[in-house]
Amino acid sequence: MPTVYVTRKAHFNAAHRLHNPEKSDEWNRTTFGPCNNPNWHGHNYELTVTVGGKPNPDTGYVIDLAELKHIIEENVIRHLDHKNLNLDVPFLRGVLPSTENLVIAIWDRLAEALPAGKLYRIRLHETQRNSAEYFGPDK
Amino acid sequence: MPTVYVTRKAHFNAAHRLHNPEKSDEWNRTTFGPCNNPNWHGHNYELTVTVGGKPNPDTGYVIDLAELKHIIEENVIRHLDHKNLNLDVPFLRGVLPSTENLVIAIWDRLAEALPAGKLYRIRLHETQRNSAEYFGPDK
Amino acid sequence: MPTVYVTRKAHFNAAHRLHNPEKSDEWNRTTFGPCNNPNWHGHNYELTVTVGGKPNPDTGYVIDLAELKHIIEENVIRHLDHKNLNLDVPFLRGVLPSTENLVIAIWDRLAEALPAGKLYRIRLHETQRNSAEYFGPDK
Amino acid sequence: MPTVYVTRKAHFNAAHRLHNPEKSDEWNRTTFGPCNNPNWHGHNYELTVTVGGKPNPDTGYVIDLAELKHIIEENVIRHLDHKNLNLDVPFLRGVLPSTENLVIAIWDRLAEALPAGKLYRIRLHETQRNSAEYFGPDK
Amino acid sequence: MPTVYVTRKAHFNAAHRLHNPEKSDEWNRTTFGPCNNPNWHGHNYELTVTVGGKPNPDTGYVIDLAELKHIIEENVIRHLDHKNLNLDVPFLRGVLPSTENLVIAIWDRLAEALPAGKLYRIRLHETQRNSAEYFGPDK
Amino acid sequence: MPTVYVTRKAHFNAAHRLHNPEKSDEWNRTTFGPCNNPNWHGHNYELTVTVGGKPNPDTGYVIDLAELKHIIEENVIRHLDHKNLNLDVPFLRGVLPSTENLVIAIWDRLAEALPAGKLYRIRLHETQRNSAEYFGPDK
Repeated sequence: MPTVYVTRKAHFNAAHRLHNPEKSDEWNRTTFGPCNNPNWHGHNYELTVTVGGKPNPDTGYVIDLAELKHIIEENVIRHLDHKNLNLDVPFLRGVLPSTENLVIAIWDRLAEALPAGKLYRIRLHETQRNSAEYFGPDK
Repeated sequence: MPTVYVTRKAHFNAAHRLHNPEKSDEWNRTTFGPCNNPNWHGHNYELTVTVGGKPNPDTGYVIDLAELKHIIEENVIRHLDHKNLNLDVPFLRGVLPSTENLVIAIWDRLAEALPAGKLYRIRLHETQRNSAEYFGPDK
Repeated sequence: MPTVYVTRKAHFNAAHRLHNPEKSDEWNRTTFGPCNNPNWHGHNYELTVTVGGKPNPDTGYVIDLAELKHIIEENVIRHLDHKNLNLDVPFLRGVLPSTENLVIAIWDRLAEALPAGKLYRIRLHETQRNSAEYFGPDK
Repeated sequence: MPTVYVTRKAHFNAAHRLHNPEKSDEWNRTTFGPCNNPNWHGHNYELTVTVGGKPNPDTGYVIDLAELKHIIEENVIRHLDHKNLNLDVPFLRGVLPSTENLVIAIWDRLAEALPAGKLYRIRLHETQRNSAEYFGPDK
Repeated sequence: MPTVYVTRKAHFNAAHRLHNPEKSDEWNRTTFGPCNNPNWHGHNYELTVTVGGKPNPDTGYVIDLAELKHIIEENVIRHLDHKNLNLDVPFLRGVLPSTENLVIAIWDRLAEALPAGKLYRIRLHETQRNSAEYFGPDK
Repeated sequence: MPTVYVTRKAHFNAAHRLHNPEKSDEWNRTTFGPCNNPNWHGHNYELTVTVGGKPNPDTGYVIDLAELKHIIEENVIRHLDHKNLNLDVPFLRGVLPSTENLVIAIWDRLAEALPAGKLYRIRLHETQRNSAEYFGPDK
C-alpha cells in the first residue's frame, strides 16, 4: 500500500497574552502591541492534525479517525479549551503562546501519543487569516 | 424606491468570562461550567450588522458600506478587539458578557451612531456553531 | 428584557432516497432523477436551530446553549447520524425525506422537547447550495 | 401543509464600476472612491434565492431545486457571468450596479420567471463582508 | 517557466458503508461502529485535484481549468455523484470505500486521463473535519 | 529552534481579461472562452502568503504577522485592489493575468520585500474552486 495522509480538525476557545517576562513592560508593549493586553484577549483556535502512513488492508485506515479524534481530545483539547494558555496549561508552562510556539508544543504532545513516525503536520489557525504549520524537528 | 437591507461583517478577538457577581461562586461554576473559568477564555467574534432603507437614487446605496464599516470600527470594534469584555470596555460595565447581552449592547451603540430607524439587525457569532441575533427593543 | 434569538448548529451524515411508494417507478425516476437511485445516496446535513426569548437576567441566556446542544443531540442527531433516513428513523416513518419534509419533522421533535413557544426557526442544509427553512405551522 | 422556504445558491464573476453618468467625474470619484475606477474592478458574486410555499404532498418539494437552479441559470447567471455589469447586460441598462440595485433587478427577473407569489428573498454577496437582501416591493 | 500547481475543486454526494466482507459481522461492527450501518449512510464529498507543471507561455495555463473540470467530471464525478460507492461504481468494485482508499482510486482514474506526470495531489473531504490526501505511488 | 511556517491571508477585488495580444482574436476567443470578454470580468481574489523560518526565542515569531500584513498590503494589495489587472498595474505590464502568472509575479514582489529565503509559498484563489500555488523558481 502507498502512503496516504489523513487529517482531523478540532477546535478550542482560549485566552492568552503575548508577553516575555524576561523583557521590560515597554519592550513587550512595543513588540506585541494589542496582543500584550495585561487583561488578556482570546481566540477560537482551529487545530488541524495530519497523520501519514500506509492504509491497513483490512480496514482501509491509515488510522481510525475516531481514535485520532480521541487522542487529540485527551492530549490537547481538554487541556486548552476554555483555558488561559499562559496560566492554566501545565504543558505550556514557560512557553510564550505565539501560534508558532503552540504548534511546536502540540506536536510534541501528539508525537508522543501516536505511533512513532506517524505524525506528519500540525496546523493551527489563530484567526481565519493567521495560522502556523509545523512538520516536526528539522532533520 | 423599495426597502433593501445591506449587511457588513466585522471581527474582533476578545477574552471574557461568564460570571454573575451577585451569585455565589458555586452557583456560577454550576451554571456556567467551563465558561466561568476565573482565568478567562476567549473567542474570535464575527459581528454582522444589517441596515435597512431605500436606496439613494444618486448612489444606489442604502448606506455607503465604507461609512458603515467606519461607524462599526469606531463605535464597536476598537473598543472590543484584543480586550477583556468584563474589564476593559466602558460600555459593557456591569454587563454579563453572554452573546445575548453583547448583541443588545452593540445594538444600543450602533443605533445611536446611525440615522434613526436604519439599524435592522445585529448578529454575533461567538463560535461557528453558537450565535445570537437581535432586532432591537420589542415594540 | 427584549427578545433575542440564539442559534446552535449541528451536523449529521445520512443516506436517503427520494421515492414516493404510491407512484410508479417511472414517475419516481422522472420526478426525482438521480435522487431516486434505489441504492441510495447521502449527504452531510447541517442543521441550524434558532430559539427566541428574553434573556434571563441572572444568566444572560435565552437558553443555555449547552442544554440546547444536548436537546438537539438527544432528540434529533443521534436518531439521524450515520442512518438511512428512509429505513432507520422511527419518527420519519412514512415521510418522503425531502429537505422540506425533514425541517417540518425536526421542528415537531424539537418543539415538543423545548419550552412552549421558544422554537423560532429550523434551517437544514442538504448541500452548501441547497437548504430549507421552517418557522412552524402557519398561523 | 405549512409554508416552508427553500434556498438555492449560485455564483457569477463579473466586472463593474460604480458611476452615475448624470453627475460630474469629481462627484463620482469622491462618492465612490476606488469603486469608481474607470478601468473597472470585479467580484465573485454569490447569489442566494429563496422561494416559499407549501410542499407538494406527492414530491415533498416547494419547488424542484433542479428546476429553480435552471430558472436562475437561464434568467440571471448566463446574462451576468463573465460579463461587465455596466456594459454587457440588457436588463441592467441604465442601472447603477450597486449591490442594492442588483438585488432589485435580479428580483424583477426571477419574480417574472417563477409562479406568482413564490419568490421570497434575494440575497447577493459582493464580498464575504458586504451583501444586500431584498424581499420585493414594499406593500 | 517555473513549476506552478493549479487546483480545481469538485463535489459529489454519495452513500457508502465501511464493511470488509472477508471479516465477520461482529468484527465489522466493532471496527467500523456506526460507519458499518447495513442500511448505509452518506456524505457530501469535496474533491480537490492539483496538477503541477510549467505554464504554457501562450496561455499562462499549466492546464486549462475548464478542461481539468471536464476531465474530473467525466472520469470521476459522474460515476460517483448520487451513487452508492459500494454497489454502483465499476472502478470501486472490491474497494472498501474509506477516504484513504477513495483517494487512491480517484488518483488512478485521473493519472490515466491526464498527461503523464501532471497529477500532483488528490485531497478528499468526507466531512469538514475528516479528509485524506494522496500524492501518488511511493517512489 | 525548528522551522515553522506562518501564513497570512489577504483579499483584493479586481477586473481582468485573458487575452494574448500576439495571437488573433479568433485564437483568443477559442482558447479563453468567456474569460476573453473584451469588456472584462472580475474576481474576489484570496491571497495566501506563507513564510518559513525559526521562531525568534524572544518573541516566538517567525515573522511578526502585523509586519507581514503590512508588507503584503504595501507591495501587493494596494496595487491590485479595485484595479484592472491588464491595465492598471505597473508590475503586471505585459503579463497575461492567468492565476498561474499572477502567483509568479506576486512571489517576485514579495521575495524582494522579505528577508532572503523566508518566502515559502504563494497561493491565490481566483474562485472558491480554482486556485494556483507557487513555491518559487525551480532549483
